[in-house]
Amino acid sequence: MTIRVGVIGTGMIGQDHIRRISQVLTGGAVVAVNDVDAARAGQVAAGLPGAVVHATAADLVADAGVDAVLVASWGAAHEGQVVAAIGAGKPVFCEKPLAPSSDACLRIMDAEMASGRRVVQVGFMRRYDPSYLAMKAVLDEGSIGAPLLMHCSHRNPSVPPYGFTTEMIIIDSSVHEIDLVRWLFGEEIVAASVFQPRRSRLAPDGVRDPLILQLEMASGVLVDDELFISAQYGYDVRGEVVGETGTVALADVSEVTVRAAGRHGGRVPVDWRDRFIRAYDAELQDWLTAVAARTSTGPTSWDGFAAAVVTDSALEALRTGQRTAVTMPERPGFYAKAQ
Amino acid sequence: MTIRVGVIGTGMIGQDHIRRISQVLTGGAVVAVNDVDAARAGQVAAGLPGAVVHATAADLVADAGVDAVLVASWGAAHEGQVVAAIGAGKPVFCEKPLAPSSDACLRIMDAEMASGRRVVQVGFMRRYDPSYLAMKAVLDEGSIGAPLLMHCSHRNPSVPPYGFTTEMIIIDSSVHEIDLVRWLFGEEIVAASVFQPRRSRLAPDGVRDPLILQLEMASGVLVDDELFISAQYGYDVRGEVVGETGTVALADVSEVTVRAAGRHGGRVPVDWRDRFIRAYDAELQDWLTAVAARTSTGPTSWDGFAAAVVTDSALEALRTGQRTAVTMPERPGFYAKAQ
Amino acid sequence: MTIRVGVIGTGMIGQDHIRRISQVLTGGAVVAVNDVDAARAGQVAAGLPGAVVHATAADLVADAGVDAVLVASWGAAHEGQVVAAIGAGKPVFCEKPLAPSSDACLRIMDAEMASGRRVVQVGFMRRYDPSYLAMKAVLDEGSIGAPLLMHCSHRNPSVPPYGFTTEMIIIDSSVHEIDLVRWLFGEEIVAASVFQPRRSRLAPDGVRDPLILQLEMASGVLVDDELFISAQYGYDVRGEVVGETGTVALADVSEVTVRAAGRHGGRVPVDWRDRFIRAYDAELQDWLTAVAARTSTGPTSWDGFAAAVVTDSALEALRTGQRTAVTMPERPGFYAKAQ
Amino acid sequence: MTIRVGVIGTGMIGQDHIRRISQVLTGGAVVAVNDVDAARAGQVAAGLPGAVVHATAADLVADAGVDAVLVASWGAAHEGQVVAAIGAGKPVFCEKPLAPSSDACLRIMDAEMASGRRVVQVGFMRRYDPSYLAMKAVLDEGSIGAPLLMHCSHRNPSVPPYGFTTEMIIIDSSVHEIDLVRWLFGEEIVAASVFQPRRSRLAPDGVRDPLILQLEMASGVLVDDELFISAQYGYDVRGEVVGETGTVALADVSEVTVRAAGRHGGRVPVDWRDRFIRAYDAELQDWLTAVAARTSTGPTSWDGFAAAVVTDSALEALRTGQRTAVTMPERPGFYAKAQ
Repeated sequence: MTIRVGVIGTGMIGQDHIRRISQVLTGGAVVAVNDVDAARAGQVAAGLPGAVVHATAADLVADAGVDAVLVASWGAAHEGQVVAAIGAGKPVFCEKPLAPSSDACLRIMDAEMASGRRVVQVGFMRRYDPSYLAMKAVLDEGSIGAPLLMHCSHRNPSVPPYGFTTEMIIIDSSVHEIDLVRWLFGEEIVAASVFQPRRSRLAPDGVRDPLILQLEMASGVLVDDELFISAQYGYDVRGEVVGETGTVALADVSEVTVRAAGRHGGRVPVDWRDRFIRAYDAELQDWLTAVAARTSTGPTSWDGFAAAVVTDSALEALRTGQRTAVTMPERPGFYAKAQ
Repeated sequence: MTIRVGVIGTGMIGQDHIRRISQVLTGGAVVAVNDVDAARAGQVAAGLPGAVVHATAADLVADAGVDAVLVASWGAAHEGQVVAAIGAGKPVFCEKPLAPSSDACLRIMDAEMASGRRVVQVGFMRRYDPSYLAMKAVLDEGSIGAPLLMHCSHRNPSVPPYGFTTEMIIIDSSVHEIDLVRWLFGEEIVAASVFQPRRSRLAPDGVRDPLILQLEMASGVLVDDELFISAQYGYDVRGEVVGETGTVALADVSEVTVRAAGRHGGRVPVDWRDRFIRAYDAELQDWLTAVAARTSTGPTSWDGFAAAVVTDSALEALRTGQRTAVTMPERPGFYAKAQ
Repeated sequence: MTIRVGVIGTGMIGQDHIRRISQVLTGGAVVAVNDVDAARAGQVAAGLPGAVVHATAADLVADAGVDAVLVASWGAAHEGQVVAAIGAGKPVFCEKPLAPSSDACLRIMDAEMASGRRVVQVGFMRRYDPSYLAMKAVLDEGSIGAPLLMHCSHRNPSVPPYGFTTEMIIIDSSVHEIDLVRWLFGEEIVAASVFQPRRSRLAPDGVRDPLILQLEMASGVLVDDELFISAQYGYDVRGEVVGETGTVALADVSEVTVRAAGRHGGRVPVDWRDRFIRAYDAELQDWLTAVAARTSTGPTSWDGFAAAVVTDSALEALRTGQRTAVTMPERPGFYAKAQ
Repeated sequence: MTIRVGVIGTGMIGQDHIRRISQVLTGGAVVAVNDVDAARAGQVAAGLPGAVVHATAADLVADAGVDAVLVASWGAAHEGQVVAAIGAGKPVFCEKPLAPSSDACLRIMDAEMASGRRVVQVGFMRRYDPSYLAMKAVLDEGSIGAPLLMHCSHRNPSVPPYGFTTEMIIIDSSVHEIDLVRWLFGEEIVAASVFQPRRSRLAPDGVRDPLILQLEMASGVLVDDELFISAQYGYDVRGEVVGETGTVALADVSEVTVRAAGRHGGRVPVDWRDRFIRAYDAELQDWLTAVAARTSTGPTSWDGFAAAVVTDSALEALRTGQRTAVTMPERPGFYAKAQ
C-alpha cells in the first residue's frame, strides 16, 4: 500500500521531504503539491510524474486522491492547514513549529480531540537520530543511574545575513532541545532562564549570540543549552547527560580520522542536513508506516503545544533576564503515550 | 515504477534483503520467492502479500511477473541461477561469492558478455559503507598524497561451532578486503601471502586463527589484513591507508560515549549486520535504482571474478606458505567503468 | 644550589610534597618538619636523613638552616605561618586556600607588601597542568578567536563519609576553577550564581550535590562549572572554551585504548593525585627554581586573596539563590604580572 | 647523595641528558664532560658550574671525581668507552645502540661478566614511556588474554637530507620496536622479514621508504612494524596488541581537542623529543636512583646485544628479501631478570 501524500509548501524543506518520499523511503508517493509561489509549485510538480498542483492548500487537503498531508509551509500558515487536514480526517505531518503561538497550538489540539483520532505528527526529528536514541537507551537501561543534569551545545556555523533576531535563536534553535529533553527524560519543563555570555563580534548585527538557555525539568534535572548561531567552524550539536553513577554523551560523527599536517581528527558536519539526514529519513518513514497502519507514533500536537509554551517562557526569560516558570496545563488523556 | 523482484534463497541473508526491499527501500517489491527448502519459502511468502512461491529457481527466473532476480542461495547454486537470469535478460543481484570458483565466474562473464548487456551486480556491500566512501573521498581528493600501504583488521567475535575451516577465513572473510582494496585503489592485486601468528586457544578446533593476509597491488601499495574470526570482544572492522603526506582511518562507529565505572568509551558492533546495515541498505537501493534506469553501477561480474582469482592465490599462499602471484587476465572492455 | 625546605604540616598533602622534593624534583631538600601531631612529624622526619623536627611552626620558620617554607597545615593555621615566613624574609609555598577568609588573605598581602618583596606562592597547581597549559596556548595564539564562554565539569568519585557540607563543594572544589579561569582569561570574576540540579541519592547526607556554579568574567565571558563530588565513576575534570571561531577542550588522559567485551575506550583517573601528579611536580619545581633565582613566578597572595573573595560571593549565592556580584578591590601594582 | 656524572659526547642527545640531570631530575650532577670536539665540550662545560673538561674519554672515566659515566658519543666509540667504565667499576649509561655490531656487544658483555657486577644500562627509553607501561600493565593483568600479534607504526616527519640509507631505517628506527617487543612480551625474537611497500616520492634519494619489518617472537606472536621516515605529517608512534579476548593500543597523546574550520582533533607530536620527553626523564632518573642504590634495573648489555643480533637478521632480510632466522645464544644467568 502506497500512501499518496500531498505536500503544502515546496520551499527548501518541502523539496527535501519530497525527494525523501520519492527516492529514499518506502510506502509513500507525492501526488499533489501546493505553494504560495505557484510557479515554484509547478516546477516541483514537473519533476514528479503524475503529481498535480493545487491552487490552494484547502484544495490540496480536499483532494480525494490525497491520503495524507505534509505541511512545510510558513509557520504562520500551519494552523489553518493542519486544522483543515484534521477536519478532512487525513493524517498530517507538520514541520516544527506546529504553530507560532501556544494558543494556535491549543486550537489545533482542540480540533484534533474533537475529531476523536490522533492524526498530527510534528517534525521533531531529533527523536529519530541514532545518537539520541542510543543516549535514551543508555538512560532507560539505567547504566548511569538517575539523570541529574544535562549539558547541550547547539552550534550553527552562521545564519542568513538578513532579518535575524535574538528571539529567533530561542524560537528556531532551542525548540529542538526543548522537545528533546521532554522526550529524553519523559517529563515536562517547569522553568526557563536565559543567560547572555560575551557577544561574538561575528554575530549578526543586533543579535545577542551566543546565549545559554537553562531549563528545569519537573524532577529537578537541570539542562543548560548553549545556543550559538555564529559558531563559524561547523554545525555541531553536542550533549552529555550526567547521572548518579556515570554520564552519556553524543559521540563525534565523523566517518574517518585523518592524520595530516601535524593534526589528527575528523570532520564536523557542515549543516543540519548533513548532521541529521538519517533522523529526517527515519522520522518520515515512521510517519508513512504509522499512516499505513492507521496509528500515530511520533511527536504529537501536545508535543508541539508544550514546546510552544516553553518557548514563550524562554522568550520572556530572555526579555526580563529572570527565571520564568512554565505554566503547562495538564496533559489530556487523549495525548497519553500509547495509541 | 516498482521493480518486481524474485528472490532465490530465503535463508538468513535472503530474508534480510526481503525485509529491506519491503520495509526500508523505495522502488522495489518482492513478488516471488524460491528456496531448496520449499516449506521455508512458503513461510516467507506468507508474510509478503501477493508473492508467489516457485518450485524451482528456473521457474522463478522465467516468471513474466518478475523484473529482476536476487540470488541469495548457497554459493554452489549461484552459477546456474545467475546464468539463467542473464539468459532471460533480467537484472540479477548475486550475493558474494559470485561463484565458488574463478572458472565458474568466467562462465558467468562469458554468458553476460554474450548477452550484450551488463545485468549482474555482486553483493560487495562495503563499497557502499559511509566510512569507506569517506576514506575513498579523502584518497581521491589527494589530501594524504599517493597511497603507499594499508592496514586492515577484520575481527569477528566468533563463528558457528561446526564445520569451520581455516580456508573459510580466506574465502568468507578476506574476500571483503580483497574486493575493497581493488575498489579503493582502483587497481588489481598482483600477489598474496599468508602469515600465521600465534594461534588463539579460543579458535575453533583445527582452525588456524588469526591469520595475516598480505596483498600487493599493481602499483606497489602493500596491504596487510588481519583476519581474526574468534576475536571475542565484538565485530570490529578497521582500516588505515598510509599516504605520502598523511593517513586516513575508519573512525569508531559508536553513537555515544559512556563514562562509568572508571572507563570512558563507546560500543563495538556486535555483528556484521549491526556494522554494515546502512551499507546493505545503500547497496540494494543502488541496485533497484539502477535496474529502474536500465543501467548497472555496482560491483560487476568482473569484480566477482577478480575476487575469486585472488582468493585462489591466497588459498595457495595459505597452503604453501609462499608468496603467490595472482594471474589475472586482462579486463574485458565490456567491464570498463562507465556504462 | 639546594634549597633547604622546612615543611609545616605533615599530613597527606605535606608528605606528598616531601616525597616530591626528595625523590622527584631537583634543587631542593627537606631539612625540617613541624606538625600539630608531633609524633607524626617525628615519623616523617625519620625517613629524611638529617631532617630536624621543630616543636612549633614558628621555630621552623626561625631555623637559620631553613631557606624556604612549605605550608601544608590546616587552613586556619595558614595566616600566622605565612606571615611569620614573610617576616623572616623567607619564600613560602602555601597550599590552597591561602587563608579561610578574604580578610586573612588581605592581612597576608599587607604583610608581604610591607616586606617589599613577593615571597608567597599559592598552591593552585592547575596552572601547571600540561592540558590547561595547552588550552591557554591555543587561546593565546588566537586559534579560536576571542573566548566567549566556558563549560567546566569537576567530578570526584566520592568524599570521605563524615563532616562534609554543601559549602565545602564551593570552598574546596570550585576554588580550582575560580583560580583557573582568572589565569586562563587573564581577568577578574565579577559575579557568581549557584544552581541546584536534581540531587544525587548517592550524595553525602545533607549535602546538595551536584551544583552548578556560574561565574561571569569582567569581559562577559560566562563560565559554568558543574561540581559533582559523588560522581562515583571516577575523577574527571573537563573543560571546553568556546571562542568566536572555534573551541578548545581538555582531551581525555588515558594512556591506552582497550577493546574488550563489546567496548572500546580508556580509563578515567581514580583521584586528583592520579590526574594532576605532573602539575604538582611542575608547580613545586617551579617554586624551587624561582626561590633559587630569588624571583616569584607562580600564583601570588593576590591570587589567593582573589579566590577567597570570589568564594565568599559564591557562598552567598549558594545561600541566597541569587546572582551575587563580586566586589574586588583594585589589584595593587605590587602584584602586577612581571617581577 | 648526589651521583657525580661524567658525560662523554656533548652533541644534541648528550646536551639534552645534561640539561635533564642538571635541571629536571634529582640525585645527579654533571661534573665532567668530554667530546671529540673539544671546543664544543668546553662550551657545554661553561654552563655547568664546577664541571671539568677532559681531553679524552679515558681521562674522564679515570677521574676519581666521577661516580658514573654517561656515553652519548658516536656509536663506533661506544665499545671502548663502555669497557673502560666497566674496567673502572663505574656504572655506565650508554645510548643506543650499545655498539654497532653484535660482536662488539658480546665483548662488552664479556667484560661486564668478568667484572662480576652489572653496571651497564642501555638507552632504550620506550620501556619508560607511560603509554607503553600502561600497555604492558594491561597485558600483564590478562585483561585481553594471551597476546597473538601486534601492529606497530613508527613514523618520522622526515630525516636530515644527507647521508641517509635504507639500512638506517632498520638500524636507527626499528631498533626501538625490536627492544620494545622483547620487553613487552618477555621473550626473544626468532625471525625477521622485511617487505617493501610502494616507495614514497618524498623519501630521501636512494632510500626505500616506507618499509614493513615483520618480527616473529618465540611464542609465535607476530609483529608487523611499519617504518616510515618521510611521513611528513608528524612524529607518530602507534601500536596495538591483539590478544585472545581483546586489544590494547597506544592512545593519541594530544593534551587538548580543538574544533575549528570544520575539523575536530588534536595535535601529533613534532618529533621524538616531544613524544618521549617523559620517557627520557624517567629512564635517566631510574638510572640515577639505581646507581645510588648500587643496583641495576634498566635495559642491560644483554638487551643491547639482543637488539644488535636481531638488527643483523633484519638487515640480512632487507638485503635478501627472505625471512631470516635470528640466531640468539642462550641468555647468560648473569643477565637474568632480578639483581
